[in-house]
Order: sequence, then C-alpha cells, then structure tokens
Amino acid sequence: MTSTRDQIIETTCNLLELQGYHATGLNQIITESSSPKGSLYYHFPGGKEELAVESVRRVGAIVLERIQQNLAQIEDPAESIRSFIMTIALNVERSGFRAGGPITTIALETASTSEALREECQRIYAGWQTAFADKLCAGSITQERASNMAVLIIASIEGGVILCRTNRSRVPLEQVAKEIGLWVRHAL
Amino acid sequence: MTSTRDQIIETTCNLLELQGYHATGLNQIITESSSPKGSLYYHFPGGKEELAVESVRRVGAIVLERIQQNLAQIEDPAESIRSFIMTIALNVERSGFRAGGPITTIALETASTSEALREECQRIYAGWQTAFADKLCAGSITQERASNMAVLIIASIEGGVILCRTNRSRVPLEQVAKEIGLWVRHAL
Repeated sequence: MTSTRDQIIETTCNLLELQGYHATGLNQIITESSSPKGSLYYHFPGGKEELAVESVRRVGAIVLERIQQNLAQIEDPAESIRSFIMTIALNVERSGFRAGGPITTIALETASTSEALREECQRIYAGWQTAFADKLCAGSITQERASNMAVLIIASIEGGVILCRTNRSRVPLEQVAKEIGLWVRHAL
Repeated sequence: MTSTRDQIIETTCNLLELQGYHATGLNQIITESSSPKGSLYYHFPGGKEELAVESVRRVGAIVLERIQQNLAQIEDPAESIRSFIMTIALNVERSGFRAGGPITTIALETASTSEALREECQRIYAGWQTAFADKLCAGSITQERASNMAVLIIASIEGGVILCRTNRSRVPLEQVAKEIGLWVRHAL
C-alpha cells in the first residue's frame, strides 16, 4: 500500500518532469495525488521547496538504478551506452515527447533561485556521472578521461532530450547515441 | 535610439534566459523595460506568447551570428569548435551561472504547451545545427556524419550549460569542449 506521503511524492515527480517547478502548484499536487487537504503541509512543513527536494531525490535514485542496471546488461561499454541512449529516445517518444529528462527543467529553473534544489540536482548529476565513468573505467579507460567522457555523455543526453521534445522526434537522441557509441568505441 | 518595441523585446530576451517562460510575467517586463503600460499589448496584441516568439527569434538570430563568426575565426574545425565551447563556459561563469543557454529553459517549458514557441525553437536549433555542420563539412566530413556530429555538439552544449549552472562551475563545459575537440579531430 502506498502511503499518502509516497503518493504526494510520486505525483510531484511526474508533474516536475512534465511541467517543471514553476508551473507546478501545490493545489494541483493535492488534486492529482488525491491527498486530503492539509496532508501536504503535515508531511512537508517546508512546503513546495521541501517537497520538490524529496521528489527530485527520489527520481534521481530511480534513474541512477536504471542507468546501472542498463549498463550492466551489456558488457561492452560502447554498445551498452549507445543502447541506453536509444532506450531513452524511445521513452521520450512513448511519452508523446512530454517527458524525458526528469530533473532537467527543475535543474535549470532553480539553479539560481533555490540552493537546496540546486545542491540536490548537483548530487544527482554527480551520481549519474560516476555510473557512466565506472563503466568506461571497466573498459580500460583512465579515470580522468572517463570522468570527462561521462560528463559529455550526461550533457548530450540532457540536451538530446530537449532537442527531441522540441522537434517532436526521437531522431536527435538517436544521432547522439550513434556518435557517442562510435566515440566510446574509439577511446577503448 | 531603441524603440519601445525593441526595449520590450530586449528585456524579454534577458528575462527568458534568466528565469524561463513561466516565471516571467508581463508586469515584470513592463517594469524592467520602462515601457508605458499599454504599449505591450499595442505592440504585441497576442500577449505573452507572441512577445516570447519574437524574443526567442531575435535571440536565436543573434546566437546564430555569434556561432558563425566564432567558427569563422579559426580555420581548423576541431579547434574552432573546442574554442567556441570554452567561450560559452566563460560566459556562463561571468553571468554568475545565471545565464547561458538563451532558449534552453523556454524550449523545455513550452515544448508541450505552445506550438508557436515549440516551432520557433525547432527552427532556431536547426539553424545552429547547420552552422556547425557546415564547418564540419568544410573540414571534409561527409554531410550525414556532419549532421549527426552537429546534433551531438548542440545537445552537449545545451546539457553542458545545465551542468555548469547546477554545479556553479565552468568545468563541465570545459570537459565537454575537450572531448568534443578530440572527437572532431579524430573524425577529420
């Protein structure tokens, strides 16, 4: 059974991915999570910011697990990373180009306006980066190079999602996947 | 002399880059552009959406010119693109990590909510992509490969700006610049 607190967090995760931070109001969260009025401030006395931090943390951990599981399925780093980016392209398409990049919008919107959210997003990106860097290191790439490459991978996925949503097409992320695959292969 | 219309557009460009679409209100635009009340709807009868489309178009054209000028300064495609990304890293830092990616936030925010803004952002990204692809083609890379590489370049710049703002550091874009430089060099 999902608790009210979990329901609120889950609804917030979805709305933040679809709409971002500014467009998501507490009333919409209460309505869409079918939570009793008052429960939101009971569980999150810090209000919208505290709730968003918790939600971003939750979704960051889920995505990290997904990255690690996906990368573990294929031994070859080049193919596993290429294939993971192709999966994201499909998921963005399946969402009707509405979702993808679960923390992208909120990271951008709050980088200068909420230190709590900025720090949480920074921690999440660092975790994702480590997951990609570990996979590259396992393929005999040096730590420093792997760290640079991991940043390029995350940056190009974040940007690729924006291009797919803007173009209403999964092609930009497919192009990113192809190039990143070639380039990891060459670095190995 | 700058016309009222131009002042309104210029102010809107800055606010959209710093805050995005949802957080930018018409009252703030009127105040910060020191425009007489009423002038906004006189010049932009379609309201906020029409004004945002005009502003995004303006900033897209300015950035396109900047890309073309920067890439023309250095003949070697690998070095010119690397150096351009380093310039963006410095600019993001100089803005106190508040700006950079002038259409990123609005592209994400409005991809599913405003067809007019989505189409304008799509056109702008396509123009930037062509500028990078032309530079790569001039370096004897085939058209199809250059097109894929140009998408990776734009995606990784857009995502790199997000990482810099989130980390309050220019390092992520410097890492992107380094890797993109190596990878263009290899493709040449």
